[in-house]
Amino acid sequence: MQQHALLITAGLLTTSDAKTAHGLIRGTERYTVRGVIDPPTAGRDAGEVLDGIHRNIPVWATVEEALAATPELTHAIVAVATSGGVLPAHMLDTIRTCLTRGLSVVNGLHEFLNDKPDLVQLAQTYGGELIDVRRPKRRDELHFWTGAIYSVTAPIIAVMGTDCALGKRTTARLLTQACREAGLSAEMIYTGQTGWLQGGRYGFVFDTTINDFVSGELEHAIVSCWQETGADLLFVEGQAALRNPGGPCGAEFLVSGNAKAVVLVHAPKRKYYDHIPAWGEIPSVESEIALIRAYGSEVIALAINTEACSPEEALAFQQSYREQLGIPVLLPLEQGVSGLVPVLQALMTKPQPPHAHS
Amino acid sequence: MQQHALLITAGLLTTSDAKTAHGLIRGTERYTVRGVIDPPTAGRDAGEVLDGIHRNIPVWATVEEALAATPELTHAIVAVATSGGVLPAHMLDTIRTCLTRGLSVVNGLHEFLNDKPDLVQLAQTYGGELIDVRRPKRRDELHFWTGAIYSVTAPIIAVMGTDCALGKRTTARLLTQACREAGLSAEMIYTGQTGWLQGGRYGFVFDTTINDFVSGELEHAIVSCWQETGADLLFVEGQAALRNPGGPCGAEFLVSGNAKAVVLVHAPKRKYYDHIPAWGEIPSVESEIALIRAYGSEVIALAINTEACSPEEALAFQQSYREQLGIPVLLPLEQGVSGLVPVLQALMTKPQPPHAHS
Repeated sequence: MQQHALLITAGLLTTSDAKTAHGLIRGTERYTVRGVIDPPTAGRDAGEVLDGIHRNIPVWATVEEALAATPELTHAIVAVATSGGVLPAHMLDTIRTCLTRGLSVVNGLHEFLNDKPDLVQLAQTYGGELIDVRRPKRRDELHFWTGAIYSVTAPIIAVMGTDCALGKRTTARLLTQACREAGLSAEMIYTGQTGWLQGGRYGFVFDTTINDFVSGELEHAIVSCWQETGADLLFVEGQAALRNPGGPCGAEFLVSGNAKAVVLVHAPKRKYYDHIPAWGEIPSVESEIALIRAYGSEVIALAINTEACSPEEALAFQQSYREQLGIPVLLPLEQGVSGLVPVLQALMTKPQPPHAHS
Repeated sequence: MQQHALLITAGLLTTSDAKTAHGLIRGTERYTVRGVIDPPTAGRDAGEVLDGIHRNIPVWATVEEALAATPELTHAIVAVATSGGVLPAHMLDTIRTCLTRGLSVVNGLHEFLNDKPDLVQLAQTYGGELIDVRRPKRRDELHFWTGAIYSVTAPIIAVMGTDCALGKRTTARLLTQACREAGLSAEMIYTGQTGWLQGGRYGFVFDTTINDFVSGELEHAIVSCWQETGADLLFVEGQAALRNPGGPCGAEFLVSGNAKAVVLVHAPKRKYYDHIPAWGEIPSVESEIALIRAYGSEVIALAINTEACSPEEALAFQQSYREQLGIPVLLPLEQGVSGLVPVLQALMTKPQPPHAHS
């Protein structure tokens, strides 16, 4: 059955807290996105709010208006990733309204809808479902790392970043699409809840996994994907950043996921981790590349997130990083990523290095 | 009430799978260890089995013999850390016997006793408790990282290693004791179940924590410890190794825990991660030190795990690493660690570096 979804962003649509919504507006195979609830931007098109491209996704101030215009709606999606994964209190009212109108509600936050008795009651009464995407798997569904990753002969490319919320998932998605358009069989392994919401078949939700199982779940996702699809190239969506103090992350992709190649996403104008001065300055791209090399992997391209850049500045950064680093530098949203396909294709002919360390 | 404990190692006492037992035999403030169940070494003293030092802890073949000799026993502890955290099947019989004799059973594996209805029934009938140390905390007991770590002015020293099961916890414990004997107020933050079993007041079980909360739980443990004890020096027990593919770990201590100093434990004779050739070779100490430096922290001393070394070889390794690395090299079990106290004391007078990265 076709699933028609309404995104709830509750006033956050123009902020990076709504990165889940941004990903779903850009594209999802699991749902057809039909509208967004976001009072401050109501009346506009969500695509235009996001990046100026009209996508025929109206923004509404209320659930009633959305349902009046789109009676075929089946799901409402809590499409924000707030700091701490907590549900903003005022969002609960919107969720209650959706449930009383018979919609199912999908939630990717750490705070679970199924833990709230009044919501469970409303869902039962009106026939909706409560879907908590981040609900951890049962222990007997989890995998430990085994070393099976070393049987994968397709190149594994991790899309990592120098901070959170930079467009790692979007870049991985664009790279996968560009390879497919060039006739390569490429697959993407998701590692966040948005990847699941977008219809990803292989992956797991990294940050909601019990630590001891992270490496095994990652390996299992990559190995099953490769075995079942026979893909030529495997892109792994990265999470956070190697040195983001709020949750350093990345060694798993390089070491347990055996990603010997990395596409690194960086925002030249972002100064502090998570935009918070007290969290410390984001180190230079050069030092991030050196750290990745210390793990035995190579950054094969830089992808620039152009937040706060004018178009001229974006091009100037592209030029200067290219000269400085000697690797391809992408502007994924402005120029696409197809220019990198030959580089990726070359990885396929290279014999995969053994897993020995220096 | 004094808690008298019997350790269950089920034939593994002489292997590194029994590292939980080894730690408890070396010392615990939570329990008084009165005996071990381990048929292959029955009749000997557990301390002598461990390292040749008699500790008045008899090894028994059966629970009945242990109880006959030690009727004041209150607890049995599953004192192994098997690969995958699964309970060896034959251990279940021993656990049932303990429960029918009224003992409480403590378990640090990922497989929980409270999930087994027949054990729950036995505990209820005979009045024992089932304590699953690795049972994850409830979500509302967990902390996110906040940056409060930067308020800690005492040096934070992570005890890390080039592989699992090398003696990181034991080294951290010895360092804490040596500092205290020298009149310094030192505290240790545990990060594994054995640390809790040994009576640690500050810490959390790293590998059983939902990934998104690891950094926050670590920060919370360090900050509360420092605030409540006013310690001069804080030692953090490391886990696994930065590049162990089964579960790379370490950035959390360096970045989220702001440990600018590291004592690195290494076994010169261990060739492969977890002793498994397919997991890959353990990289050189130099490359591990370089990787730690790429995170902005310094290795201030190497501690040698002398497994498979003759006493002469151990001394030769100490000498050659000292020359090669230019830092103090400890043989913790053979020589103690008090020689490092002046180096640690010097850290206290150094102004703590800001958290800026290179």
